[in-house]
Amino acid sequence: MPRTLETASFRFNHTMLRIKDPKVSIPFYTQTLGMELIQKHDFSDFTLYFLAFDHSGGVDTLDIKKKTQMSREGILELTHNHGTENLKETPYHSGNSEPKGFGHIAITCEDVEEACARFEKLGVPFQKRLTDGKMKHIAFIKDPDGYWIEVLPYTRGPTGE
Amino acid sequence: MPRTLETASFRFNHTMLRIKDPKVSIPFYTQTLGMELIQKHDFSDFTLYFLAFDHSGGVDTLDIKKKTQMSREGILELTHNHGTENLKETPYHSGNSEPKGFGHIAITCEDVEEACARFEKLGVPFQKRLTDGKMKHIAFIKDPDGYWIEVLPYTRGPTGE
Repeated sequence: MPRTLETASFRFNHTMLRIKDPKVSIPFYTQTLGMELIQKHDFSDFTLYFLAFDHSGGVDTLDIKKKTQMSREGILELTHNHGTENLKETPYHSGNSEPKGFGHIAITCEDVEEACARFEKLGVPFQKRLTDGKMKHIAFIKDPDGYWIEVLPYTRGPTGE
Repeated sequence: MPRTLETASFRFNHTMLRIKDPKVSIPFYTQTLGMELIQKHDFSDFTLYFLAFDHSGGVDTLDIKKKTQMSREGILELTHNHGTENLKETPYHSGNSEPKGFGHIAITCEDVEEACARFEKLGVPFQKRLTDGKMKHIAFIKDPDGYWIEVLPYTRGPTGE
């Protein structure tokens, strides 16, 4: 179905997840996953963090990334409600037990075996290793709040085709 | 922080949400939002739908879109567990009442006033109209399962800056 003029400018800009502790989650998303923190906005009760993968090969400055943030796709917004960092466990629900809803975000990559070996080495918890179950090319890791992150290769679709 | 070689190929490929009834949700995402159904995979108990905005100006064929699906960003995966379409109400949870977690997906566009006037005309339910609250450039509509979809313009950030 062709896109009509009325929706021609629409982009799937971001997905928002609440997090318990940015001191744990931001290093996870930047260092473990390789995203970049593009924007941070402080409010009195909460802080918003906007992260994304750089596809400019390091050419674009942070200023350019801030300017193009709203017209690109693939942004992750993390919301930190101040105070939750002091809780023993995350107050947030992954959506994969009752009540279900949201399922996961997914990262694709060139070499899923290499990516998973690195996650293993870094101590990232797995919901499903490549060797578990039938789908040997798909893994699920868990972020610090327990949200599921699917990891799969460019070369094969989400169903193995 | 520069991206390291180990994560250089990573992309934020998709976000997965469970839906009650594809006969309602697919028209919503394709006709109301203007996404395109790129892939559909049937399993015995469930079906997966992959949707995305076309940024090729209609030049790319569906075959090209299927081939590049895994290496792009901004895909929405909708999971239909067979049988839920017969329930009176969606069994799924938006993440915005207890237990909280996932918050929303967001669509950016050139003219948010025009986009919202069109949603209004199409009878799309609003969680927050542009005129509600302090943030006059941000709206939230609700998809058929009640998931929140933020709608905001390219020209202003998520905090109004």
